[in-house]
Amino acid sequence: MSVAIIGGGAVGLLFSYYFTKNVADTVVYVRRKEQAELLNRSGLKLYQEGTLREVKVLAKVLKEEGDIKADLVIVAVKQYDLRNLSEVLRNRVPRTAKLLFIQNGMSHIPFLETLPQGCIYVGIVDHGALKIAEHKVEHTGKGLMKLAAFRGNLEAVTPMLENLDQTRFPIEFKDDWYPLLAEKLLVNAVINPLTALYHVENGTLIENDYFLENMKNLFEEAFEALGLDDKAKRWEDVVSICRQTARNRSSMLRDIEMGQSTEIDAISGYLLQRSVSANLRMPYTRFVYNGIKGMSS
Amino acid sequence: MSVAIIGGGAVGLLFSYYFTKNVADTVVYVRRKEQAELLNRSGLKLYQEGTLREVKVLAKVLKEEGDIKADLVIVAVKQYDLRNLSEVLRNRVPRTAKLLFIQNGMSHIPFLETLPQGCIYVGIVDHGALKIAEHKVEHTGKGLMKLAAFRGNLEAVTPMLENLDQTRFPIEFKDDWYPLLAEKLLVNAVINPLTALYHVENGTLIENDYFLENMKNLFEEAFEALGLDDKAKRWEDVVSICRQTARNRSSMLRDIEMGQSTEIDAISGYLLQRSVSANLRMPYTRFVYNGIKGMSS
Repeated sequence: MSVAIIGGGAVGLLFSYYFTKNVADTVVYVRRKEQAELLNRSGLKLYQEGTLREVKVLAKVLKEEGDIKADLVIVAVKQYDLRNLSEVLRNRVPRTAKLLFIQNGMSHIPFLETLPQGCIYVGIVDHGALKIAEHKVEHTGKGLMKLAAFRGNLEAVTPMLENLDQTRFPIEFKDDWYPLLAEKLLVNAVINPLTALYHVENGTLIENDYFLENMKNLFEEAFEALGLDDKAKRWEDVVSICRQTARNRSSMLRDIEMGQSTEIDAISGYLLQRSVSANLRMPYTRFVYNGIKGMSS
Repeated sequence: MSVAIIGGGAVGLLFSYYFTKNVADTVVYVRRKEQAELLNRSGLKLYQEGTLREVKVLAKVLKEEGDIKADLVIVAVKQYDLRNLSEVLRNRVPRTAKLLFIQNGMSHIPFLETLPQGCIYVGIVDHGALKIAEHKVEHTGKGLMKLAAFRGNLEAVTPMLENLDQTRFPIEFKDDWYPLLAEKLLVNAVINPLTALYHVENGTLIENDYFLENMKNLFEEAFEALGLDDKAKRWEDVVSICRQTARNRSSMLRDIEMGQSTEIDAISGYLLQRSVSANLRMPYTRFVYNGIKGMSS
């Protein structure tokens, strides 16, 4: 079996480490030549709880290569970089390849619908991962990858994932892709923009009564727009994630502080699009969307 | 004629300078002994366009004094410090004294209704003033003081203000106090919380389309809650103040950055109180209110 991983960010490197360790024929595709050269020359280093682990990887520059002949192609770029991959996935990846998409939010769904491949999967990861250098990633919090079939069936991909390290990189399979992505989106739609706007760690949102009220109002809007079930459970999830990651800085906060693109379009932007067709007013979501867009422009 | 000015902040010091210059019997009342001693020893220094002007002032510590026997008492403390003055104004200021209140927002209005004095005025200043030290104030932007009678009539106070320097410290008299305060409140309710949340100068709000959309939505809510006339003109005012003060940092932004109390209760808090009785939904105002309260707590 052969695996291709597209993306040299924190999640791409994390996947590259665990797949290379367990699947001989793994290739990492990155955008920039410098990163590919560094990975090929120095290997990929993973830090976890003070321990350094290393693996030799094969990295290639995406735009310099021809066809990507892999059985499983894992797309681990940010949602806003997906559009650049349209031509690659359409023309350079076989229709028989299984595609697995690891993006936050849900605005990539319409894009997936346009692809020719017969087996498409979506996944989310709640691992903590921090890219330290172009060939170094820190696995800051052990989590879980959850995945579900978007097109085709799960049975076609499960054998490909059986060889992975189930202790350090466990996988859970879900029957239905919509709640999988929507529940993660709901959490992100509440925690990410607020922590970025207020420049606070995740835990501060629930420790501060004023922030908590805004959080609850944002949650209500997102919950309604997504049409999910069991509101009490969903709210508990949001609060407990804030508690479990209390001293973490959300990825959106880090993006804002570093002047980088954020995932706000895939998260709050997607909800606002849904609100138009559902004829919902979402003033809180609108406010944070505009705030984050403004702060990062 | 005698004048008492209560308050040793930027506005209090600005008033102290112009009144002391033109009215012989002016006393400045401040909270802390150190400030009173410094003012008495070193005089009050006013910087304007690179020029230093100085005046000898008489400063007293408010809580150490007995009756305040002045014909005109100017109350130039922040709204959130007003409640500490209740006993002073009620028991130590004659009922015949004219009282002039210089506060932002409108949450001081219910307090004014409880006072025994027969002549009460409210004023707003759009001077730029920055307190540099306990006895130093910079007059950063020449503006206008506007005032109106809240109780009693304007004729009783106008002669007291005639001797002031009309070039550097001009005064305009208004017939109706409500639009005077409400129009200023409207501007503050839009510009102050947004600049403080986003950590930007006033001009950025109109230069950034995303911020501008949030600004417009906040404006709509505040305009409706205040029941003002001529919406187009009011919006023009907000935009033109952002333009004229483009490189200024709002007082609320400075308060947040310095970890000080803000005037959010007198501004957005007052609007939210009105919204309850008027049965209005004000999600944008609620969001910025909670945001500023949370950031300063």
